[in-house]
Amino acid sequence: MNFPTWMSGIQQRTEAALVAALPSPELAPARLHEAMRYSVLGGGKRVRPLLCHAAGAIFGADSSVLDAPSIAVEMVHAYSLVHDDMPCMDDDVLRRGKPTCHVEFDEATALLVGDALQTQAFHVLSKHLPGIAPARQIDMLHLLASASGSRGMAGGQAVDLAAVGHQLTVGELEFMHIRKTGALIRAAVLLGAHCGEAGPDALDHLGRFANRIGLLFQVVDDILDAEASTATLGKTAGKDAADNKPTYVSILGAKEAKSMSIKLKQDAHDALDPFGAAALRLHELADFIVERTF
Amino acid sequence: MNFPTWMSGIQQRTEAALVAALPSPELAPARLHEAMRYSVLGGGKRVRPLLCHAAGAIFGADSSVLDAPSIAVEMVHAYSLVHDDMPCMDDDVLRRGKPTCHVEFDEATALLVGDALQTQAFHVLSKHLPGIAPARQIDMLHLLASASGSRGMAGGQAVDLAAVGHQLTVGELEFMHIRKTGALIRAAVLLGAHCGEAGPDALDHLGRFANRIGLLFQVVDDILDAEASTATLGKTAGKDAADNKPTYVSILGAKEAKSMSIKLKQDAHDALDPFGAAALRLHELADFIVERTF
Repeated sequence: MNFPTWMSGIQQRTEAALVAALPSPELAPARLHEAMRYSVLGGGKRVRPLLCHAAGAIFGADSSVLDAPSIAVEMVHAYSLVHDDMPCMDDDVLRRGKPTCHVEFDEATALLVGDALQTQAFHVLSKHLPGIAPARQIDMLHLLASASGSRGMAGGQAVDLAAVGHQLTVGELEFMHIRKTGALIRAAVLLGAHCGEAGPDALDHLGRFANRIGLLFQVVDDILDAEASTATLGKTAGKDAADNKPTYVSILGAKEAKSMSIKLKQDAHDALDPFGAAALRLHELADFIVERTF
Repeated sequence: MNFPTWMSGIQQRTEAALVAALPSPELAPARLHEAMRYSVLGGGKRVRPLLCHAAGAIFGADSSVLDAPSIAVEMVHAYSLVHDDMPCMDDDVLRRGKPTCHVEFDEATALLVGDALQTQAFHVLSKHLPGIAPARQIDMLHLLASASGSRGMAGGQAVDLAAVGHQLTVGELEFMHIRKTGALIRAAVLLGAHCGEAGPDALDHLGRFANRIGLLFQVVDDILDAEASTATLGKTAGKDAADNKPTYVSILGAKEAKSMSIKLKQDAHDALDPFGAAALRLHELADFIVERTF
């Protein structure tokens, strides 16, 4: 199976799993459920589920088991976007080519949508997972919580907020992105590996790969924000510069940021060496993330 | 040990457990961690931890194990208050006698505080719990997620929002409160029982008790909001009427609401019959919740 076919298959099964795991809009409170589905379904590249499935595939994990951590991570990601777009945060009106949740619904609903999506992630991941030992499943839940909280994604957003209008060093920018974007990407990879019987060494190598990919993802995002059009992105382009946010492009310049992305991609590939051909999909995903830019 | 001494002991150990489980303000991002601690520590009656410990005591559960679900539930409760107080929700400036989080810090920080506190609850409850089988711990995590999400507490808040300015029946008001307040109170009781070896029948009885207590709590809250002063409450009094929110007092009148609270308290006591003297603390807590009013 070639990469685009594999990718499209994972994206479709992820969409189906999300449809099944989100509360039905026919259940009360209907408007909240409708807004949750609006914010999660029918958009996004599903990079985190792709990484989760690709990492699990190395260890022969079952796709139907990998769906649970995949959509749990995607729900956390979606909740963070909904809250991040709110007026008190980035105040953005466009996401995945559609009005943001607080624009389409209202602010109070967007707040509750984010809250309930986060809960739903833990709800999904605490259901029975066939073939996963309960103690391992608890480790997975703990991993998701560590990646999402104040020392992970939410903490990265706090640092991001504090950075607006400040000059950061590349080191400080990295500190922020390792948390804001990197932590959840790392969780996606490691949760996939946990669904197979990955040992500590394998998790170490994958952790290294994921750290590179997380930064790579952000560098590419910064390049896209600076260079692409709003229509291509499906979200407001040029917003970082307009908001006076430090980015890899604003600190390093576009050329240097592109060189950095190539270097990170190579490091990511190198981290996969111990897995040989079993890591094919992860290699392809590293390339895919960079190819968005050029 | 008399009830006030027992209660004060649980409140103190809960505070200590929260201090230990919240990220240190010396860790980055320091301001977020400071705001999380501000929103959780040094206030609140800790009703949910009290219920959790009292329910666990029936089955001889260890206090040090009960601390984990107690503070997990308290963190979910605290996050809901922080988000509920925000301008796009209830827009309140006073909580537990202090400025609300978004007033003391800022809106974006309050949003992230709520987000990170919810995550921290699942982080705490997914740590190793001595003497609890992993499969049971997963059930506990699932129970907390069910109680907190769109079919529980967050869903109740959505119904509450939609109800502003509308005339509700007592049945509709109950539907809302069973979710908004009741679900988490029920979770506190059942999580405590899960820390002992409570069987399905015992969980049924406790579920019935908790449903009564959850409603009782809300009826009493409505009476207090209508009758007490801001200084006594530590939050803005008379706010429900000012916000045109339906309450038990606005629908039934104060006298009828008080009768209802007495009836609910009796039903709660009756639900504890199967446990005999082992349920002493739960009996006392039911009385304590009502005695706040008179």
